[in-house]
Amino acid sequence: MCRRDLAIVLVSGGMDSSVTAAIAAIDHALCFLHVNYGQRTQNKEEQAFNALCDYFQPVKKLVIDISYLEKIGGSALIDRSIDVPVGNQVSQQKVPVTYVPFRNAHFLAMAVSWAEVIGASKIYIGAVEEDSSGYPDCREEFYTAFQSAIDKGTKEGCIKIVTPLIHKTKAEIVKIGNHLGVPFQLTWSCYKEEDEACGVCDSCRLRLKGFEEAGLKDPLPYKIKK
Amino acid sequence: MCRRDLAIVLVSGGMDSSVTAAIAAIDHALCFLHVNYGQRTQNKEEQAFNALCDYFQPVKKLVIDISYLEKIGGSALIDRSIDVPVGNQVSQQKVPVTYVPFRNAHFLAMAVSWAEVIGASKIYIGAVEEDSSGYPDCREEFYTAFQSAIDKGTKEGCIKIVTPLIHKTKAEIVKIGNHLGVPFQLTWSCYKEEDEACGVCDSCRLRLKGFEEAGLKDPLPYKIKK
Repeated sequence: MCRRDLAIVLVSGGMDSSVTAAIAAIDHALCFLHVNYGQRTQNKEEQAFNALCDYFQPVKKLVIDISYLEKIGGSALIDRSIDVPVGNQVSQQKVPVTYVPFRNAHFLAMAVSWAEVIGASKIYIGAVEEDSSGYPDCREEFYTAFQSAIDKGTKEGCIKIVTPLIHKTKAEIVKIGNHLGVPFQLTWSCYKEEDEACGVCDSCRLRLKGFEEAGLKDPLPYKIKK
Repeated sequence: MCRRDLAIVLVSGGMDSSVTAAIAAIDHALCFLHVNYGQRTQNKEEQAFNALCDYFQPVKKLVIDISYLEKIGGSALIDRSIDVPVGNQVSQQKVPVTYVPFRNAHFLAMAVSWAEVIGASKIYIGAVEEDSSGYPDCREEFYTAFQSAIDKGTKEGCIKIVTPLIHKTKAEIVKIGNHLGVPFQLTWSCYKEEDEACGVCDSCRLRLKGFEEAGLKDPLPYKIKK
C-alpha cells in the first residue's frame, strides 16, 4: 500500500516546518508528526504544533514523546548544564553546541515507520542547509544517503523524503511562507524562551534576519527590540 | 573525540546479539545498548540483557524505553491483535508480520547519537541477512546505505557500523558463539513466550535449526520437544 496523495510532515512548530507544511498541502493530504525530546522549549513548541494542526487540519496527527535523547545528552538544547549561546557566542564553532547528535535521523526513522504503516509515500522535512546553523544532519547529502537507507530497509521502497527548503535562504523561506499564507504568528523558533522570543539565540537571529531581508515584519513578540 | 577501542553493541538478549558481543569483545571495551519497545517478550529480553551485562562486564550500559513503536503499530511483535505465526504459517509472506517497520533504523540512530556523545567509533549489530526472517532492515545493503547517512549526518564522521554475522548461517553463528564461550543459557530468542521458549515461532525455529545443524544442544527450555 502506497498512497501518492498522503504525506507525512515533520512539524516542530517552527517557521521552516510551517512553510514546509504549506508546500506539502498544495498536493497532499497531510499527516503531522511532532516529537517532544526534552528540549528546553518543548511546551511552547507543542503548543505551536497544536495551533498549526488547527490551521492546517491534517487528516492524521501523531505526537511522540521520548526522553532518551535527553538521557544521551550532548547538546545545549537538552542538557541544562550547557548554556544556549547568544549573540557573538553563536557560530564560533563549526558545529554549534545546540546540535543534538544525529537528531534528524531519529525523526526520519519515526516518520518512515509511520509511513510504512499508514501507506504515506512522502516525508516532508523543513531542513535548511545553507542559511542555517551548520548542523551535519541538515545537509542535503545526509538526506540523499538516508533516502537510500529507506529504499533498502523498508518493505515496499516507495517512501520518499522531500526537503523543499534545503537550498533556500531564510529570506526566501519567509517570502514563500508569506505567499502561501503561513500563519507565522502561531509558530515558535526560539531555543531559549517560551513567553517572548529571546531574539539573540541562533534560531531567533536566523529567523529575524530572514524577515528583515524579506522586508517583512515578524509577528512574534521579542524581548530584545528588533 | 573518537576512541578506536570503544564499541557500542546493540544487545537484544538474543543469540545473535550475544555472539556479536563476544566478537566485539575481542578488540574493544564494550558499551551495551538495549531497547524496550513494547515487544511481547520485553521483560524476558531485558532479563537476558542484564544477565549478559553480568557476564560481559561492559564499561557502559544504556537501556532505552520507548513506547512509540507500539503506538505506530504494524507488527505482530508489538500489536497484540496480530498473532505471531507458528509452524507452517511462518514465512508464507515475503516479509513476515513480525517485521517491525524500519525498527533497526531507530536502534542504529540511538547508537549513533550515543556514539557521538561518548566517542565510540564502532556500532556492532547482530543482523543476519541470509539465514533469517527476511526483514528488509536486516539486509547488508541497508547497513551500507545507513553507514553513508552516518558519514554525512554526524559531526566527526568516524563512526562505523559492524555487522559480523550478516552473511553467516544460524549454524555458523552457533559454532562461533560456542567457540567464544557465549553463555547461550542466558540468552532469549522466542517471540512469544517468557517461561519456556515456544519452539515454533520463526525465531525459535531458526535458532533450533542452527543448533541442530551445528550438532550442539540448545541449553534453553522448550515447550515443544526438540
